Formats: sequence, C-alpha cells, structure tokens
Amino acid sequence: MDFGTEFRPLTTQPQEIEQKSFAIIEEELGPHPFTDEQFKVVQRVIHASADFELGRSLVFHKDAVQSGMAAIRQGEPIVADVQMVQSGISKPRIAKYGGDVHVYISDADVAQAAKQEGTTRAIISVRKAVNAHPNAIFAIGNAPTALLELIRLVKEGVAKPSLIVGVPVGFVSAAESKEELMKLDVPFIANHGRKGGSPVAVAIVNAISLLADAEGR
Amino acid sequence: MDFGTEFRPLTTQPQEIEQKSFAIIEEELGPHPFTDEQFKVVQRVIHASADFELGRSLVFHKDAVQSGMAAIRQGEPIVADVQMVQSGISKPRIAKYGGDVHVYISDADVAQAAKQEGTTRAIISVRKAVNAHPNAIFAIGNAPTALLELIRLVKEGVAKPSLIVGVPVGFVSAAESKEELMKLDVPFIANHGRKGGSPVAVAIVNAISLLADAEGR
Repeated sequence: MDFGTEFRPLTTQPQEIEQKSFAIIEEELGPHPFTDEQFKVVQRVIHASADFELGRSLVFHKDAVQSGMAAIRQGEPIVADVQMVQSGISKPRIAKYGGDVHVYISDADVAQAAKQEGTTRAIISVRKAVNAHPNAIFAIGNAPTALLELIRLVKEGVAKPSLIVGVPVGFVSAAESKEELMKLDVPFIANHGRKGGSPVAVAIVNAISLLADAEGR
Repeated sequence: MDFGTEFRPLTTQPQEIEQKSFAIIEEELGPHPFTDEQFKVVQRVIHASADFELGRSLVFHKDAVQSGMAAIRQGEPIVADVQMVQSGISKPRIAKYGGDVHVYISDADVAQAAKQEGTTRAIISVRKAVNAHPNAIFAIGNAPTALLELIRLVKEGVAKPSLIVGVPVGFVSAAESKEELMKLDVPFIANHGRKGGSPVAVAIVNAISLLADAEGR
C-alpha cells in the first residue's frame, strides 16, 4: 500500500511525544502531596485528560498502589465497568502475568436481570463480576451505580478487591459515590468531584501495570 | 443467576439519570453562543466530561451539524482514530442507516508502514482510512498527528470528509492541530485548548446521530 512519505510533522515519535508531555506535566504541576509511585499515576491521568485539576483531585488509599501492583503480578483479573475502559487498558502487560480484562455490562443475562429488577445493567454487572472474581482489580470510569453496588458488596464481605479504581464521571451520584468509597479501608484510587471517566480509569490501570512490570523485571 | 434484590439506590433508571444530568447542565451552563442543535452536542460533551470549560471551548463550523446528520442518514461510515472511540460510539443508530464504524490503528499493515517510515501508526491509519472512505465522518479524540495528517489530505483535495470531529487531548501538538483545523472551510467540530479525548469525540458523534435519527423519524 502506498501511504505517501512527503510530509512529516516535527514530532512523530510516540515515545518522544510521551516524554515531552510528561516533562511539561511535571513542570506545570509543581509541588504536590503524592509519593513517587502515586505521582506516576497522577502524571498519566493528567496526560490522558490535560486536566491538572483532575490530577490534583486524586486520592490514594495508602495500600492502593502496592496492592494493585501485586495483583497485576499475581495475574488477578481486571473488571472494567464499560467497553471503553476495557478497550483502553494495555493488554500485553496484563497478559504477561496471566491476567485479563473482563466487562459484563453487555451480557445478555445482565440486561435481562436489570430489566426484571428495574435497575441498571451497571449494578447487575458488578454483582456478576464479584461472583466470578471477588479479588479482582475493579476499574469503574462511568457508572456511579456500579461503584455504589461494589461498595455495598465490600461492606457485606462478599467482594474483596485487590484495588478499586473508582473514578466515575457525572452529575448524578458520581461525586457522592466516590466520597463513599473513600470512607472504606480497602485499596482504592478515586478522586473528589464530578470529573473522571473512562480515560482516567484506563490511565490509572495502565500506570499501575507499568509500575508492576518495571518492578517485576 | 441470583444477583440479589435487597438494595436499591435512589436513582437507578438510566433515562432518569440522563435527564436529571441534562437539566443540571442547562442550568449551570447559563447563557451560551450555541444554536439549539449545537447545544445538544455541547450538552452531551459536558455530560461525558463534567467539564463546563471543555463544553464552552467547543467550536462548530457553520455546516458541521447538518453535514454530520446528513452523512449519518446517508450511511456514510465513521472512522475513529482509536479503539476507545470506536467502543463508545452507539452502533445501532449508525447501522440503522447503513453506516458502520472503522478503526485502522491496530492493523498489521499500518504498524508495518509506520515502522518503515519512522512515523506514528496514527498518521498511517488516517492515510489508509482516507483511501477507503474519503467522505467519512472522522472522529479523532487522541492523536494530534492523525488530525494534522487529515488536514493535509483535505488541503490536497484527497480527503473530503462529511464531518471532522477533531478533539485530540494532550500537551504536544493537540491544541495546535485543532487551531489548524479551525482554519479550514470544511464541516468540523473542534475545541480550543489541550483538553479533549475519546469520550468527547464519542459524545459528539452520538449527539449527531441522535439528532439525525430524531429528524429522520
């Protein structure tokens, strides 16, 4: 196939672009309260959102990064709340340790149960995920109802996640669901406020798997 | 499967959550320069990002919404720059009119050509997409280099997109690529600044297809 070769922007090397971005982020963010490892996560979230306010709003349970890294290296599965989160998560680094990424929200039995109960598919898919993978890393970028249900199942002792990445975005229950999460003594990474979303959840998971892989070498 | 039924948050109806969110957005956004149809797009972007600054930064070419709606109804394909954008786009409304959503960035021939030329897969995948679908709706949420390449192909008369959704996020070339797009007299929806991303591109495309479908009924 002839794709043409005559035109080249100044910076077209993905590695170079990422390094330049990370340098800008470090310079512009300035002083921050994060540990070195937490900062790697924050940096990747800002990289994905170009939003320093969002980066600064991140909150880490003290065990979150270590527990997430250990889970990756032990091949614990990752459960994503929606397809967009699953799409964005870098698979080879997960698969290297035997892990994989699951998403249940589009399953036929989930849709049916949600309809029967008059609730969201997000809630039902969390119940299904916890049944199958009680110790998984849960990455929730969209549905506050999914996060609230996961919190309930943690409180009941049914779910024992290695890490909850709880960063749903939105105007109804998103901020509140994250404040509930921050009350739990489980490994979590969340943020204050309405902002969040799939790329934030993806950035956090990918940062954790990069840290896990760097340490595992 | 027993998913349990004892617990129900106050608002668990997706439609109800969306309507409540849209009402909050309309109230908090206040006066704005957008037409009614453009506002539907802006509203969905704010819904996806919880970011009013991002919503206000949107810029519409005068023909953008109408041209995008017409393209959806004519079954023109949509080209997404990355999998996350493809994942998020609502497919049934596109398929109803004969359209589909393509993404080329993970194709083996794209990776090979990018390596040979020492450039990004994003650039090569745009060339491949334009070859296959010169009149498509292009939805670019991530790669500024993809948008710059598409702009070049428009200037050369090779690409004649029905709509360019140009909202890459980032610190290197993202804002600049969007400013270049805004100089063109082609149907575009873009935004000023570094912010943007997959959910923004998805929200715009889904808003356009909802408008197209509402008018098509």
